[in-house]
Amino acid sequence: MRAWHLTLPLERGGPAPLAAQIARGLAGRIRSGALRPGARLPSSRLLARMLEVHRNTALAAYAELAAEGWITTHRARGTFVSRELPVVATRRLAPGPRPPAPRAHFELPPAPDPRAALPPPGTLQLLGGVPDPRLVPVAALARAYRRALRRAEHLSYGDPQGHPRLRAALSALLGEARGLAVAPEGILVTRGAQMALALAARALLPPGAAVAVEALGYRAAWEALRLAGARLVPVPLDERGLDVEELARRVRAERIRAVYLTPHHQYPTTVALAPGRRLALLELARRERLLVLEDDYDNEFHYQGRPLAPLASSDAGASVLYVGTLSKVLAPGLRIGFLAGAPDAIARATAHRYFLDRQGDLALEAAVAELLEEGEAQRHVWRTRRVYLGRRQALAAALRGALEGALSFREPPGGMALWCRVEGSLSADLWAGRALAAGVAVQPGRLFAFDGRARPWLRLGFGRHDEREIREAVRRLAGAMPPRSGSSRR
Amino acid sequence: MRAWHLTLPLERGGPAPLAAQIARGLAGRIRSGALRPGARLPSSRLLARMLEVHRNTALAAYAELAAEGWITTHRARGTFVSRELPVVATRRLAPGPRPPAPRAHFELPPAPDPRAALPPPGTLQLLGGVPDPRLVPVAALARAYRRALRRAEHLSYGDPQGHPRLRAALSALLGEARGLAVAPEGILVTRGAQMALALAARALLPPGAAVAVEALGYRAAWEALRLAGARLVPVPLDERGLDVEELARRVRAERIRAVYLTPHHQYPTTVALAPGRRLALLELARRERLLVLEDDYDNEFHYQGRPLAPLASSDAGASVLYVGTLSKVLAPGLRIGFLAGAPDAIARATAHRYFLDRQGDLALEAAVAELLEEGEAQRHVWRTRRVYLGRRQALAAALRGALEGALSFREPPGGMALWCRVEGSLSADLWAGRALAAGVAVQPGRLFAFDGRARPWLRLGFGRHDEREIREAVRRLAGAMPPRSGSSRR
Repeated sequence: MRAWHLTLPLERGGPAPLAAQIARGLAGRIRSGALRPGARLPSSRLLARMLEVHRNTALAAYAELAAEGWITTHRARGTFVSRELPVVATRRLAPGPRPPAPRAHFELPPAPDPRAALPPPGTLQLLGGVPDPRLVPVAALARAYRRALRRAEHLSYGDPQGHPRLRAALSALLGEARGLAVAPEGILVTRGAQMALALAARALLPPGAAVAVEALGYRAAWEALRLAGARLVPVPLDERGLDVEELARRVRAERIRAVYLTPHHQYPTTVALAPGRRLALLELARRERLLVLEDDYDNEFHYQGRPLAPLASSDAGASVLYVGTLSKVLAPGLRIGFLAGAPDAIARATAHRYFLDRQGDLALEAAVAELLEEGEAQRHVWRTRRVYLGRRQALAAALRGALEGALSFREPPGGMALWCRVEGSLSADLWAGRALAAGVAVQPGRLFAFDGRARPWLRLGFGRHDEREIREAVRRLAGAMPPRSGSSRR
Repeated sequence: MRAWHLTLPLERGGPAPLAAQIARGLAGRIRSGALRPGARLPSSRLLARMLEVHRNTALAAYAELAAEGWITTHRARGTFVSRELPVVATRRLAPGPRPPAPRAHFELPPAPDPRAALPPPGTLQLLGGVPDPRLVPVAALARAYRRALRRAEHLSYGDPQGHPRLRAALSALLGEARGLAVAPEGILVTRGAQMALALAARALLPPGAAVAVEALGYRAAWEALRLAGARLVPVPLDERGLDVEELARRVRAERIRAVYLTPHHQYPTTVALAPGRRLALLELARRERLLVLEDDYDNEFHYQGRPLAPLASSDAGASVLYVGTLSKVLAPGLRIGFLAGAPDAIARATAHRYFLDRQGDLALEAAVAELLEEGEAQRHVWRTRRVYLGRRQALAAALRGALEGALSFREPPGGMALWCRVEGSLSADLWAGRALAAGVAVQPGRLFAFDGRARPWLRLGFGRHDEREIREAVRRLAGAMPPRSGSSRR
């Protein structure tokens, strides 16, 4: 046998078993051409000595490589690199300069522009609606998930409408906590509220349908509606929420089919839709056969008085499709949202869901159902509600201390953000840009404006960080305040 | 204090803590009206005695109810049902006859018809492409998921293109096992192949684009293309796969923008696209700027000879978008698929993904990345490939024993199904219907036909069941054979 030199970087005690590390290492050498087809490999006994591993480890590595076709073993003659490799040689895997990435050869239509940019690491995020993932009950969640995985049917194809157990638990939750009487067949479990909205729009609106939206609102929802083919019609709002009289005028003037709104803690202004307007909106919807898409994205986080019941709970006309999410109850990363409403509408949205991603993650859905059934999710909301209330107080106090006069706000009864008016001689856009450079991300009013024009507001979220971090974020925000423009009033 | 009777069905040692059970039980009594607003409740000490629980349990239950607004406690006077209940009373939660489900009041456009019907429990499923969820390495998966949950960033908002670690692991897998040189930025992680296809169609095809498909093919893919606005053009196929010459004629005759195909183990016929046709297709795509959507849904399960390299691996023109899935590698229920190709095309698909469901399940993506990095997923494929080969042999032997003459087939080099020709005087549709009644689900050729007309074929999958179950399924199938029509030839 010829001398055979081999060094492989093995990480002992690392996450990957040694046999797998050896197999991947040798496969890499073969692929890169360092080991040629037909080359003799050391015996498993010698390989074990060379790498200082147990012989069984070397045997396991060779068995894996043989099964994959990289090597062949002849009982008498020894072990060799296969003459026919499992696949054609790859074009780039050996180290070296990277070739330019290929450009698509087919024609590309224009793409929308997602707001997917994440701030650089270390940035404090005063972003509305982002809860603190550090508060998630991960141990309970991991246990429930492990239990759910034990049932083989959770790993196969299943109900595209969502796990029946989760739909039953959501039905109970909606009845108990929000006064919404909706049976499990009136619920479709989705990947977050974003998918709920995308499905509702695709399944229930004809192409080109006009949809009314709040003139200050949630851009990702607008894009979901636009990508579904909708034409958006902005309707103004004030401190009592969406201007329903103006909506009624627009409905009369053009054929509006649906309205999308956030009536509970309006996004981004945090105001609640006034009681008279709620009734007027439901009556308008009934009369004009309008679909009402009610996005109740943070129902649970209400600190003063009772949470308002959703529009859907007093919707005798079955006009409302209710969009909910567990992103704030548990965690955004779980991507569990839902659509609730009349079963015939839900059935249509389910059909679209089937052709979009077939079904949800049934094991995760079962695990979340367990957390709801056991009351773990509800207790979590109860605990975190107090935490978030403390954070709101910390943010309000820090702003009053450091930015009195520059920012003014009313503490809203709920939600995870303050909507702050910026004093007239300051530019909200400039301030937000300087703040990001100083390590704190905040959102200027322009981001929420349908017309894309500047607004003298900043939205400051208090969900993501603890009270110490919030004070530091306000310190950075104050330090980043831009110079006042010309005619400073103070 | 008045006498106060209370019985609650408590499940000791059950999954829900006793305090939560008590709280939910009392909330239910309040909601149903059994406990009226203002009614006095027993002291926590008395409640504990009545229910035979520890006093701390009773205190915890009351604390939860108080936090939710169901009850109020006055230190001196005692505990009472709130006079203002947390929400408006629900319209239906007490037992009683169920009111008819509300019908949507807004207008509903026509809906597509999903094939979501699942066979009744106990049915043996000889359905192609459905792997056996009992083989999934659930312990390793649950461990990896628990580890992934420990990182708070996996529970928050993150990269809509997929976890960078999973994209890197997929890049390595594609390079190592399939000869595909694609960098992590050329990969978009999706919810299964279904979403990969839906996104590619929505992001890369203009509305109304003509897309060629196999005349016998995968209906759920066609619906995804149709819902994205595509007009489908069926192209015939034979025992060498898609008729590329005929495709070229169609491309010249009408403005075809893309072709969707399953070149490895054609769905449903199991044939491989012949080498000459592969080259001709790539050349046609390059010349005509055609987008090729290559669905390589079960690459791993190839039993004889080497798996064919994907079209994408010899695509010098960057015309191919490669659709892959881990549904067969790990489990369909995990819904991990991906799109791989030119980075500019992937960026466009990612933008659409953001507005559809924002991002994947980052914790699950990290867990699956770990299984790939450690070689656990690859070892699983190696183990299950032998299992599936054994099942294929069992199915083939059972069919030859029980249905010689009625069914004929060639054993394909890979995949999870046999495509069986039904003898001329037998109706495949009738047979499939009778088989379902006898407890075995099989798919007649009509289900795969673009024209929706009957075809003398049955597709019999062997992935879902073990060898004993397969033999039983064939016994049921043979027992369900319909009478031969008029001119029986034997």
